[in-house]
Amino acid sequence: VVGDDHVLTDPDLTAQYARDWTGRFRGSTPVVVRPASTDQTAGILRVCSAAGAAVVPQGGNTGLVGGGVPLAGEVVLSMRRLAWIDPVDRLAAQVSVGAGATLEAVQAHARPHGLEVAVDLAARGSATIGGMVATNAGGLRVIRHGDMRAQLAGIEAVLADGSVLRRMHGLVKDNTGLHFPSLLCGSEGTLAVVTAVRLKLVSVDAEQTVALLCFASLVEAVAAVAELRAWPVPLDAAEVFFADGLALVTRHLDIEPPVPRDAGAYLLIACGGRSDLSTELAAAVAHLSCAPMDIAVATEPRSRAELWRLREAHTEAINAAGVPHKLDVALPAAALAPFADTVRTRVTAVEPGAQVILFGHLGDGNLHVNVLGAEGDDVDDAVLRLVLEHGGSISAEHGIGVAKKQWLELDRSAEELEAFRAIKRALDPQGILNPNVLV
Amino acid sequence: VVGDDHVLTDPDLTAQYARDWTGRFRGSTPVVVRPASTDQTAGILRVCSAAGAAVVPQGGNTGLVGGGVPLAGEVVLSMRRLAWIDPVDRLAAQVSVGAGATLEAVQAHARPHGLEVAVDLAARGSATIGGMVATNAGGLRVIRHGDMRAQLAGIEAVLADGSVLRRMHGLVKDNTGLHFPSLLCGSEGTLAVVTAVRLKLVSVDAEQTVALLCFASLVEAVAAVAELRAWPVPLDAAEVFFADGLALVTRHLDIEPPVPRDAGAYLLIACGGRSDLSTELAAAVAHLSCAPMDIAVATEPRSRAELWRLREAHTEAINAAGVPHKLDVALPAAALAPFADTVRTRVTAVEPGAQVILFGHLGDGNLHVNVLGAEGDDVDDAVLRLVLEHGGSISAEHGIGVAKKQWLELDRSAEELEAFRAIKRALDPQGILNPNVLV
Repeated sequence: VVGDDHVLTDPDLTAQYARDWTGRFRGSTPVVVRPASTDQTAGILRVCSAAGAAVVPQGGNTGLVGGGVPLAGEVVLSMRRLAWIDPVDRLAAQVSVGAGATLEAVQAHARPHGLEVAVDLAARGSATIGGMVATNAGGLRVIRHGDMRAQLAGIEAVLADGSVLRRMHGLVKDNTGLHFPSLLCGSEGTLAVVTAVRLKLVSVDAEQTVALLCFASLVEAVAAVAELRAWPVPLDAAEVFFADGLALVTRHLDIEPPVPRDAGAYLLIACGGRSDLSTELAAAVAHLSCAPMDIAVATEPRSRAELWRLREAHTEAINAAGVPHKLDVALPAAALAPFADTVRTRVTAVEPGAQVILFGHLGDGNLHVNVLGAEGDDVDDAVLRLVLEHGGSISAEHGIGVAKKQWLELDRSAEELEAFRAIKRALDPQGILNPNVLV
Repeated sequence: VVGDDHVLTDPDLTAQYARDWTGRFRGSTPVVVRPASTDQTAGILRVCSAAGAAVVPQGGNTGLVGGGVPLAGEVVLSMRRLAWIDPVDRLAAQVSVGAGATLEAVQAHARPHGLEVAVDLAARGSATIGGMVATNAGGLRVIRHGDMRAQLAGIEAVLADGSVLRRMHGLVKDNTGLHFPSLLCGSEGTLAVVTAVRLKLVSVDAEQTVALLCFASLVEAVAAVAELRAWPVPLDAAEVFFADGLALVTRHLDIEPPVPRDAGAYLLIACGGRSDLSTELAAAVAHLSCAPMDIAVATEPRSRAELWRLREAHTEAINAAGVPHKLDVALPAAALAPFADTVRTRVTAVEPGAQVILFGHLGDGNLHVNVLGAEGDDVDDAVLRLVLEHGGSISAEHGIGVAKKQWLELDRSAEELEAFRAIKRALDPQGILNPNVLV
């Protein structure tokens, strides 16, 4: 179907497709097939269907939950060659791209038109659009523009039997039955293989204003975000970290922070537009019912980057301090502070010497729980159960994949899981698509 | 299950449930059942499933495509008694409501908190939230806030066999498998009966600015919308009408328009926020690559209403001139002007004396095609086929229901329709839920 050159069987060549980049998940594959078109993808799936061969679709292989790894010797369907990008449709502010286009390539293509994909993430150089759709990628700007699902104006995907679903006209109002972009987004390759996407684009902000607000408590920071949402210029980000993380970061980077070290919660907010918004931002902060203890504002690129660095360097500072357990969870706004108050106690109950560092996307209720000094999986179990006690979700943006499968039935009801399985059976009766993940 | 008082069999009582409000669709029903809770809804569906009795779920019965009418003697499941509304969650800017709550009731409940549902429509006094979800309601503000699907932070729904899917915690980041709010929204009651919804709310704008821009052509108006999208303060509406509609409206209302009568296209834009935005709006218009021929701006409530009236009175002015065929369609931005240029010719080819009036939501590519002086369905067929030739959608916001079912297979591919049917069979194997609509 694809020609011999794109059927890899040499273990030296296939090995990189059979493990994830963290090294946590490793499998093996008899063959990696690299289609260059939708027709070829359909052809491969017809062959695999006829042979009853299980298939793991793979994009840039940058996932964090092992969702793209052939754990049980599946065929790997590498989508990276479908990397075409159509001209930007400026009237619609949309672009059609192949599933294998990297986010970075699409951004580079759109930005000369003053447009960009609203979902951006650190793995942009390798992460493919198809993978971002399959996993419903999130990131920093969900508070303003929504998740990957919200960026989809059309999709093309191939079902297990090789039939092609295609609706790429980009209409934002289209009530003609089921909405496949929404259904397939976040389905982790279990229902269909995404081959192309029609993406909505947003305007690139000429200016950005960033402020770091110090509050006495997380409760106050959460309330501030709720109030700032009512501000006419939308927040581009609302990120949170804490004194312990700030200490780790400033030590790692060997810098002095521009704000006191002893606040109860640090809220980093950003907003962007055509002009400098620092006056408006200051006015909005001045109107908060609970004023911050301290504030640092930045509008120049360098000083903005310095504030952002305090939040973004958390990952490297934590990694430098040890090998963390990382849990990506979400909580209802009202449960964020109660969860944060309890999680350390709960972790040290199962792992006495462990240190818990929290940071994340406060505007979306999305916390990244990092635990240093833990050995087994007991810590993961303790954290995820606490999340569920507080009405939260065990996966905010990374997905379930293989990593969180054992906790899924604690989070989703038996009725929901049975409905997943029924839809899975309906679209993939043999169960050949990404059989190790989700359900 | 619901008690005798809520099982209506008297034809005098059931008649109103067996026809739609336009009178175009009429059926009959042996029984109308009115549950007051999710448990009762599940109980009814278990009974109907066991009896193999088909069910038509019904909200406020304000649909425009006959989707809630028991055409073949189905049981009517009237959801209006599930009208509970929880206290507003101000931290999350969300509210949980029963499917039977009217949009008006939810708006009245949310507005004292400075919040509202972003999707608003004329039928708000009767339309229920459950019906708006089942039909993925649209309206004027989709350009800013998206359709009903975009307002959903959670859903509770009952499958045909009585099992309940429930996920109402309102997390905006939640990657734990399939997203049922997205799947069920727009499924027109064919997959499940919605019993409750967790709605995102948006801030009520203290001020609104409205401008009516006159362009030489629709091409220029479409280009203007694309440029105005890049403006930092988001457009709340971008509506279009034409000289023939304006003439009809001004004659019907007996008024003089504040702008010339002979423009090629009239673009009404609105934006809202905490303060008067007329300066910013004027600046944005001044930067358009193609300046409007004329402009009227309004910030005071009365003058704003006068501008809005020119657009909103189209429906009543058209109805006063005759009984129109109304077709709700969507087109890609680049196809709007070519479609508008051709549609009159195409209509008069099949119906020589007919008059075509276009208006609609330009920002979403959504045109309402009104045809006066047409007899049979040939006009509908001619318009919908022209839409498809231009890469559009036969239903932008009203849905398929019964009214557009005969054209659905021209719009959606055989593969897509088979995937719909497979999912329908998976969740409703007996096919008892709203069997007359969609597929």
